[in-house]
Amino acid sequence: MSKRIITIGRECGSGGHTIGKRVAERLGIAFYDKEIVELVAAKTKLSPDFIDAHGEYFRSGSLGHIIGYGGRFASPMQTQSSLQDHMHFVQTSLIRELAEQGACVIVGRCADYILRERPDCLNVFIHSDLPYKVERSVREHGLAEGEAAGILSKRDKARAQHYSFYTSQTWGMSQNYHLTLHSGFLGEDTCVDLLCAACGK
Amino acid sequence: MSKRIITIGRECGSGGHTIGKRVAERLGIAFYDKEIVELVAAKTKLSPDFIDAHGEYFRSGSLGHIIGYGGRFASPMQTQSSLQDHMHFVQTSLIRELAEQGACVIVGRCADYILRERPDCLNVFIHSDLPYKVERSVREHGLAEGEAAGILSKRDKARAQHYSFYTSQTWGMSQNYHLTLHSGFLGEDTCVDLLCAACGK
Repeated sequence: MSKRIITIGRECGSGGHTIGKRVAERLGIAFYDKEIVELVAAKTKLSPDFIDAHGEYFRSGSLGHIIGYGGRFASPMQTQSSLQDHMHFVQTSLIRELAEQGACVIVGRCADYILRERPDCLNVFIHSDLPYKVERSVREHGLAEGEAAGILSKRDKARAQHYSFYTSQTWGMSQNYHLTLHSGFLGEDTCVDLLCAACGK
Repeated sequence: MSKRIITIGRECGSGGHTIGKRVAERLGIAFYDKEIVELVAAKTKLSPDFIDAHGEYFRSGSLGHIIGYGGRFASPMQTQSSLQDHMHFVQTSLIRELAEQGACVIVGRCADYILRERPDCLNVFIHSDLPYKVERSVREHGLAEGEAAGILSKRDKARAQHYSFYTSQTWGMSQNYHLTLHSGFLGEDTCVDLLCAACGK
């Protein structure tokens, strides 16, 4: 079966977003990354800032699905964790809808796990060495050179915890994906070429 | 820099050996897998059977490098573990020599870790789902259908332990490799094409 959905997990600074966008453009299919924030906001009435901060980053106190939620919250921590879990379930449902609608690239947000039952879904993980990620983050996103390594490391840790929490799998373990790429070693152009080739294009 | 050495870690039954051999043939470069057993045997005078059994499988009692060895062994367990470590060091040295001699594909034996300082080395890991590996092992290697899953699982566990023991890294973790492939999902032909493309061919 040809691959019509591509999910891309990625380390911060590895260029996974850019690679995914270029693949979507070359294949002429939809692309979803930050776009998901607005779509979830419309369904939940949560603020885009909250969704952006919690959509794929683990925050302390995220045990709401064990505590349970239903409009009655005992503390601010319960409120936040319950909202985070609620948002995750809405996001999960949205990702399934997007995959049903047509061929697309979906970045992050445990999409590989959420769509694991689909045989037409190519699951990808993109990573790189720290110097490459730091250089790229300073150049592309304006991070301060002396702070970039710490910021990237903290974000990746929160992404790994979020992924582990909602999937019970290890983020970045090759067996969770069909293809993983070291973007710094291979280069962005080669990564785009390899992903298109893996889709038979 | 172009990639002139390709190392391939692989799960048992994933077809990593066959994919590596086809890549070597297409690129017109040397291929080393079981060939390493004979080369290590010639350097150590250990039996090929011992080398085959220990060259990339962890066996109990492999603490020889902590206990130390120098011709005087206190017990059969120490003898075996010391020989295993001795063999690993000879194998490590041999893999470095092979990489120096010219472009090649090297399968297994922690070659990705051993050659990690080389900028011209493409490190690959190939894995697949269990049904694919079982079907392939029964068809290609004559494993009994009812026993294949257990045999493959046991071998992979021993490979993972061996890799972890000698590299302090997690076997199959994408960050240890430049490219990882799910052979059952992508298909053997596509894996060969992607590896050659990653080498710029």
